[in-house]
Amino acid sequence: MVDILHRVGVKTPTPEKVYDALTTVEGLSGWWTDDTKGNGEVGDVLRFRFPPGGFDLEVVELRPLERVAWRVVDGPEEWIGTTIDWDLRQDGDYTIVLFKHQGWKEPVEFMHHCSTKWGSFLMSLKSLVETGEGAPAPRDVQISDWH
Amino acid sequence: MVDILHRVGVKTPTPEKVYDALTTVEGLSGWWTDDTKGNGEVGDVLRFRFPPGGFDLEVVELRPLERVAWRVVDGPEEWIGTTIDWDLRQDGDYTIVLFKHQGWKEPVEFMHHCSTKWGSFLMSLKSLVETGEGAPAPRDVQISDWH
Repeated sequence: MVDILHRVGVKTPTPEKVYDALTTVEGLSGWWTDDTKGNGEVGDVLRFRFPPGGFDLEVVELRPLERVAWRVVDGPEEWIGTTIDWDLRQDGDYTIVLFKHQGWKEPVEFMHHCSTKWGSFLMSLKSLVETGEGAPAPRDVQISDWH
Repeated sequence: MVDILHRVGVKTPTPEKVYDALTTVEGLSGWWTDDTKGNGEVGDVLRFRFPPGGFDLEVVELRPLERVAWRVVDGPEEWIGTTIDWDLRQDGDYTIVLFKHQGWKEPVEFMHHCSTKWGSFLMSLKSLVETGEGAPAPRDVQISDWH
């Protein structure tokens, strides 16, 4: 099992804004990439595009305010067939976000890059909900020379 | 195998400054925590302290400008016995940093937290080398309510 794991706490009184940011095109384009298309219902495919390429993700599970799960149906070879899960719970003033990107075959260098990049995008999600302003591509935080 | 992996690219002409930031108390205290003590030679123990606690790491390998490896000898129970490796290589204008924190027994919630936190500290290391200013504890980026 080679997984990417992350956890952030978003200061917000209920998981509603975080859930919306993971399940609507408006929300997703506010922290991940400006160029997000599709519908967020189960069985739909969300299409995320970045300057160097993109990902098509099928929504496989939605449990309102608690859980979102995606399956990668197109994108870089290493991503295809992997799954991305988001689990939310409220803990006092914070919505706790547990993130898992599972099913990588090998811990290749690209996986190291994606792990750091996901952490950075989770901080963008946190910022979007807390301040109204995220850092989606192409205004995302640059972590390296990888394009 | 449950590992934390990260990769950043630091804009600098050689790996020298990154290597120094991983092997000297002055360097380490510039990006990880102000409260760093010890010596950076093989067999020595570096003591890192943060407001909520700390880690004692034995330096197990040093390959100048290429590799640094630590073993956790004291700290949170989940960390003890785990290993932290840094591999450096030059790629054009960037020093590529590959990071692995290996040997976690279980993908517990604390591991998710540490993964995001490591990503944030790698960005602090990148900033220290590129700009002269990192974000070590207690001025580190707050990712959640976890103390």
